[in-house]
Amino acid sequence: MIKRPIGIFDSGLGGLSVVSEFKKVFKNKRYIYFGDTARVPYGSKSVETIKRFALQDCRFLLSKDVAAIIVACGTVSANAIEELQKNFAVPIVGVVEPTANKAVEIAMNGNGRIAVLGTAATIKSGAYEKAIKKLDDKIDVFSVACPLFVPLVENGYIDKPATSMIAREYLEDLAKKNVDAVILGCTHYPILSKVIGEVFGESVLVNSGKEAADYAYALLEEKEVEDGEGEYYVSDEPHGFSETANVLLGEDISSCIRRVNIEEF
Amino acid sequence: MIKRPIGIFDSGLGGLSVVSEFKKVFKNKRYIYFGDTARVPYGSKSVETIKRFALQDCRFLLSKDVAAIIVACGTVSANAIEELQKNFAVPIVGVVEPTANKAVEIAMNGNGRIAVLGTAATIKSGAYEKAIKKLDDKIDVFSVACPLFVPLVENGYIDKPATSMIAREYLEDLAKKNVDAVILGCTHYPILSKVIGEVFGESVLVNSGKEAADYAYALLEEKEVEDGEGEYYVSDEPHGFSETANVLLGEDISSCIRRVNIEEF
Repeated sequence: MIKRPIGIFDSGLGGLSVVSEFKKVFKNKRYIYFGDTARVPYGSKSVETIKRFALQDCRFLLSKDVAAIIVACGTVSANAIEELQKNFAVPIVGVVEPTANKAVEIAMNGNGRIAVLGTAATIKSGAYEKAIKKLDDKIDVFSVACPLFVPLVENGYIDKPATSMIAREYLEDLAKKNVDAVILGCTHYPILSKVIGEVFGESVLVNSGKEAADYAYALLEEKEVEDGEGEYYVSDEPHGFSETANVLLGEDISSCIRRVNIEEF
Repeated sequence: MIKRPIGIFDSGLGGLSVVSEFKKVFKNKRYIYFGDTARVPYGSKSVETIKRFALQDCRFLLSKDVAAIIVACGTVSANAIEELQKNFAVPIVGVVEPTANKAVEIAMNGNGRIAVLGTAATIKSGAYEKAIKKLDDKIDVFSVACPLFVPLVENGYIDKPATSMIAREYLEDLAKKNVDAVILGCTHYPILSKVIGEVFGESVLVNSGKEAADYAYALLEEKEVEDGEGEYYVSDEPHGFSETANVLLGEDISSCIRRVNIEEF
């Protein structure tokens, strides 16, 4: 059997936080990362556009002969995973199912209450709620769109008072619900764990990237995956991303990011 | 002579604030608006990508046989106006030159000091500074990127304390400079006039959309422009924009926005 790399994609660089989790479990396996930095964000756009972009993202990764695809993007996972699975033969793993599994596991040992935070498109899709109810329809799910979290993170507003103020506005009603688990349903949100954690006190924050990486590792027979390094592609020019990549991935990949014209796929 | 409509484009719906100014001077003239809502925002992206997208935007408008193009987008005006003028034969009017004219006129009767607020790409380009210095090289120019203003406006954070807090952080150093004029170098910023005005006290806020519309009216012989209504095109699905359009344009155009696949141009 010919071993092949794993593909991982996101609307932008947020998915590098998933790569970071991927590397913890897959160790020295080869992966191809694509970030659609020319068209980011996806979370404020329509389902039709999200599907169209995600199909192109997958076609690019398949042109690199990947054995499977991890959809790091919460918005694509929530809105287009079935469309992608219908169109392509390789295994495609999104973040919704594995994250719902983990949150339900926690909630079943608690009050049976889960909060979901995501982009406008993720929350509108109801995908997390459906996945949770499928596992246990007695669990109460409370969902809130937090559309400013992505631009706040991307502009370095991590520890700022304005970020705490916005987080409290988004989450104060939710904080009274005594939830057991809070799903961070967007790749950027784990960066705001401290701010979000302050609002929720004792609730467990569930990082969708970590759950997706663990799930993909359990699903894909490790021996099918090629050994090697990561490769990074983006749709905007690669310069100027080193700082964000450092925050999300914890290493400097600025010299090895290449540009791809995604609109051709 | 065959009369033709005017084309107006922006990275998204922000340019509708320019349409609103356009309608005040051009009255019942026909125009074609394009908003690249599938790929918005431009202000955080590279010059190369901004140019590539802007060329497609113009090609679409020219396919509608426009007589001239108003670049409502501050980011495109600052980064790609020469590229567009080089590629196309019709007059192309950006916001930088007319807005610089107005600000210089104000500053020459004051302290000779101008502040420029814009997206990351607009400020990085130095386009306003160059345009101002070309008119009067003794004028002091102070530029600040305000990257969170666009997402704040798009998410309805107009009158919120968090918005005032972020505005003060961006602008507090600038507020001490005793500037005569503050250029609102992005289509979204006039929506934040109240918040920005609070920081700057007596300085005059210069709305780039209004200046561009006035300049275009003076430049284009009115008799060349066809009478008629506006037509609206976007690259994302048209539904869900009625609220934003109402805020920016002051009328409900939700039923007459059409989608165009901009990547084909």
